[in-house]
Amino acid sequence: MFGCLVAGRLVQAAPQQVAEDKFVFDLPDYENINHVVVFMLGTIPFPEGMGGSVYFCYPDQSGMAVWQLLGFVTNEKPSAIFKISGLKSGKGSQHPFGAMNLPQTPTVAQVGISVELLENLAQQTPVASAAVSSVDSFTEFTQKMLDNFYNFASSFAVTQAQMTPNPSEAFIPANVVLKW
Amino acid sequence: MFGCLVAGRLVQAAPQQVAEDKFVFDLPDYENINHVVVFMLGTIPFPEGMGGSVYFCYPDQSGMAVWQLLGFVTNEKPSAIFKISGLKSGKGSQHPFGAMNLPQTPTVAQVGISVELLENLAQQTPVASAAVSSVDSFTEFTQKMLDNFYNFASSFAVTQAQMTPNPSEAFIPANVVLKW
Repeated sequence: MFGCLVAGRLVQAAPQQVAEDKFVFDLPDYENINHVVVFMLGTIPFPEGMGGSVYFCYPDQSGMAVWQLLGFVTNEKPSAIFKISGLKSGKGSQHPFGAMNLPQTPTVAQVGISVELLENLAQQTPVASAAVSSVDSFTEFTQKMLDNFYNFASSFAVTQAQMTPNPSEAFIPANVVLKW
Repeated sequence: MFGCLVAGRLVQAAPQQVAEDKFVFDLPDYENINHVVVFMLGTIPFPEGMGGSVYFCYPDQSGMAVWQLLGFVTNEKPSAIFKISGLKSGKGSQHPFGAMNLPQTPTVAQVGISVELLENLAQQTPVASAAVSSVDSFTEFTQKMLDNFYNFASSFAVTQAQMTPNPSEAFIPANVVLKW
């Protein structure tokens, strides 16, 4: 029913079915993964009124599974690209794989797909940084990065009165950073 | 041998074979496409020493096919994600589909895969804005953007001796920008 593709690697089309409505792909060497594509194979659609929530799961430093909601696939939107390379510092979220006790190996992450009612999916909020399949999210990401930079740089800002005399050090007016 | 997936749509696994070594997928409604994934199905590898160059083709305003090189798939790197939103204003590049005379429909673009010697692929340069599938290219992109920023900001840099007295204007030490 589902396929999973790590950019640069061979496609996987045979997830492990860990429950009637739950499917898991292993992602070996996940530290070197940037993007993951999750898609329906086109053979079997979701039952009427159902769709899939897509989770990323990785082991934290103590080996516990951390799950994060990446997004959704549905009959109307049967594929999605997710960026997982910035998720590793994030917090876990609620997830429906709790009782699975999937074995955790330090370098292996998982993508889990849970088949649920569409109305349940609509109440779940994916981690924002995982969305890549629209131009908007890329622009938002860049803007966010620049905002972070301005906040970072501004924390070092000084006025002339606060400067220790050092004629050789170069300074950039803070409003130049904002204008850019 | 190949699959093609437009983010958000159903996967395609049956390209049109337009020559012994050339395969084409149709991309309807291409103006609404952001990302395309091209991958090997894993059934048949490339012959020893061969790989595939991946092209995007769209009709220009006069209906002529414009081809642009997106990148490559090989046995070692059997999948790639390309960003095609943003390519429509670009110039066409040399391509091996010249004699095909593929029918052009205003809203339908194509992804073409040409099987070639790896040494030929190594001499081809994809359009830079199409790469999204590796941290390297993303990091390079970000780094380039930050370099641009540093060059921009540095052009405004002043030392304390050059400052006009203005106790309220905030300054950011230039080395903070570099460190970030």
